[in-house]
Amino acid sequence: MQTVETLTYKDGVLTLIDQTLLPVELRKIDCRDLESVWEAIKMLRVRGAPAIGIAAAYGVCVGLQTAGTNPSKEAFFRRLDEVIPYLASSRPTAVNLFWALDRMKAKAESVRAAVETGAEVFALLEAEAREIHEEDRRLCRAIGRYGAELLKDGDAFLTHCNAGGLATADYGTALAVFFAATEAGKKIHVYADETRPLLQGARLTAWELLQRGIDVTLICDNMAAMVMRQGKINGVIVGADRIASNGDTANKIGTYGVAVLAKHHGIPFYVAAPFSTFDFTLADGGGIPIEDRDPKEVSHGFGKQTAPDGVAIYNPAFDVTPAGLIAGIITEKGVIAPVDRETIRKVYE
Amino acid sequence: MQTVETLTYKDGVLTLIDQTLLPVELRKIDCRDLESVWEAIKMLRVRGAPAIGIAAAYGVCVGLQTAGTNPSKEAFFRRLDEVIPYLASSRPTAVNLFWALDRMKAKAESVRAAVETGAEVFALLEAEAREIHEEDRRLCRAIGRYGAELLKDGDAFLTHCNAGGLATADYGTALAVFFAATEAGKKIHVYADETRPLLQGARLTAWELLQRGIDVTLICDNMAAMVMRQGKINGVIVGADRIASNGDTANKIGTYGVAVLAKHHGIPFYVAAPFSTFDFTLADGGGIPIEDRDPKEVSHGFGKQTAPDGVAIYNPAFDVTPAGLIAGIITEKGVIAPVDRETIRKVYE
Repeated sequence: MQTVETLTYKDGVLTLIDQTLLPVELRKIDCRDLESVWEAIKMLRVRGAPAIGIAAAYGVCVGLQTAGTNPSKEAFFRRLDEVIPYLASSRPTAVNLFWALDRMKAKAESVRAAVETGAEVFALLEAEAREIHEEDRRLCRAIGRYGAELLKDGDAFLTHCNAGGLATADYGTALAVFFAATEAGKKIHVYADETRPLLQGARLTAWELLQRGIDVTLICDNMAAMVMRQGKINGVIVGADRIASNGDTANKIGTYGVAVLAKHHGIPFYVAAPFSTFDFTLADGGGIPIEDRDPKEVSHGFGKQTAPDGVAIYNPAFDVTPAGLIAGIITEKGVIAPVDRETIRKVYE
Repeated sequence: MQTVETLTYKDGVLTLIDQTLLPVELRKIDCRDLESVWEAIKMLRVRGAPAIGIAAAYGVCVGLQTAGTNPSKEAFFRRLDEVIPYLASSRPTAVNLFWALDRMKAKAESVRAAVETGAEVFALLEAEAREIHEEDRRLCRAIGRYGAELLKDGDAFLTHCNAGGLATADYGTALAVFFAATEAGKKIHVYADETRPLLQGARLTAWELLQRGIDVTLICDNMAAMVMRQGKINGVIVGADRIASNGDTANKIGTYGVAVLAKHHGIPFYVAAPFSTFDFTLADGGGIPIEDRDPKEVSHGFGKQTAPDGVAIYNPAFDVTPAGLIAGIITEKGVIAPVDRETIRKVYE
């Protein structure tokens, strides 16, 4: 199975797939300086929470290369204090960006007293970024492994949006399950919702599945119900943006509707996500804030105006699927089923 | 309430809204010769089954103007035999086109023996075209009147695709209900699904409702479930392409999914359509053929490629909503509820 690496780091150079050119062109860009990493995150050339975190961690290394050869430890830390806030300014709403930058900063600070040169810290930071990358890869692989057990040879599954390798280290969450099932020798077919308004399903999911040689059929979001009624779908797997402690799941707009349709047709609906997606401070999905996005994503989606001037447009980025509609949550520690507070805690511990 | 007339005919000139320019520009075109009527139908400047039929009927008059001043009856009928097949070739799959042309032809033939000049036939054909137009207007108004009784002041309703005045003489079917309720002094709010892939909801429904001063909010198809869950929707009304004798209804793709979502949220789901939409030769929806359309409508929505080369795409034009999900069918003879074979027959007779 062909592997397309979303991001790689070697000798101070971060190489990324420019996701803004997909699905028409596969072009990799080499970020050799801090500014180009910043620009890649800012312009969404790299996207998806885990992938942004990994890019930022490597971005710290890209930005510290010169300082890393400077014998002065103080000069190194001065540069670190420039690099981290600069990268943080690239996409101020991306939680994983801050998480990764904080972790890199904490690593550097933890050895500050013990080391003598910047080069020593630099080597440790490169190792830390690689570890962040590797951890995400392990999570994805574990999710894929557990999820693959839910698929039978010959099954067809539906997915919504893109929870694939492009958003993570290499394998994704929802798509990890399809990749792992295929690697385990099961022949599967995937229906991909195009996922309006930004079409991540059409642009990214369909592309990733084709790249890996998995049978994929693209449909508009409003065709999922008919395909289910035709008996073509054995199950649904989607990713998650945030999961409350009772299992209520926020994910890309449209996910909740798919869950209702799956229920109506007696089709199991699964969520695939690492435990880092759980927000245990939330009792249920009612507390998850929903971002309203730019109406132009709906009215000018294809570069051409497709709705009249002045029409009101509602464009929520996410919706919340109640735990009761979810047959199971596939995590790196196993499948949570049934989806309730107690089972979530049991699998977590 | 401002009225925008989809088509008008005066002194041998058929004037149409060029619907291909909507929603960005409202431009009317004057068809002064047969070729421009043909071109307008062919290029979808006029669309919607009833509107195409009316345009074709007037088109016959446009094409017979010169012959209509020719004293020779034989010359008139020779021209008629050129005009009708020519117009029929503009859109060979449009049932209403043939229906209207057959009716015009039958009218002419019915008086052939009795009249002496082409001018006499021409006058009768103009009257027949006006009657076809007027009949459709009466149907739409009656549907609107019956449907409006289902809406309460302050209600918000969802609609899918475009079953509005642009597709009919002036008032539509599903949208007729909103227009009539508003004229009856009820303040209503309409949510319009954009309706992928061709975006008739965004381009046409949103535009028509704005034109008539009705509050409208445009959403992507996959947002309907969330809006229902938020309690924002009191009911759904859609049009129909074909209804089987048990009430199973074929309509624009996505309609069935909306019906399932409405059921899940306890929201009544109505169909608005004249009795001419019923196909009493069909026992149920299983016999309704579903056209598969060009995959490029999905992958190249508006001139820009949004899906990878070579991906399989499923693009059915319609789906079938089973009668059991439909709370009522709003016809020109009253509302059919419950939706079953017996009640349909009772209202029809």
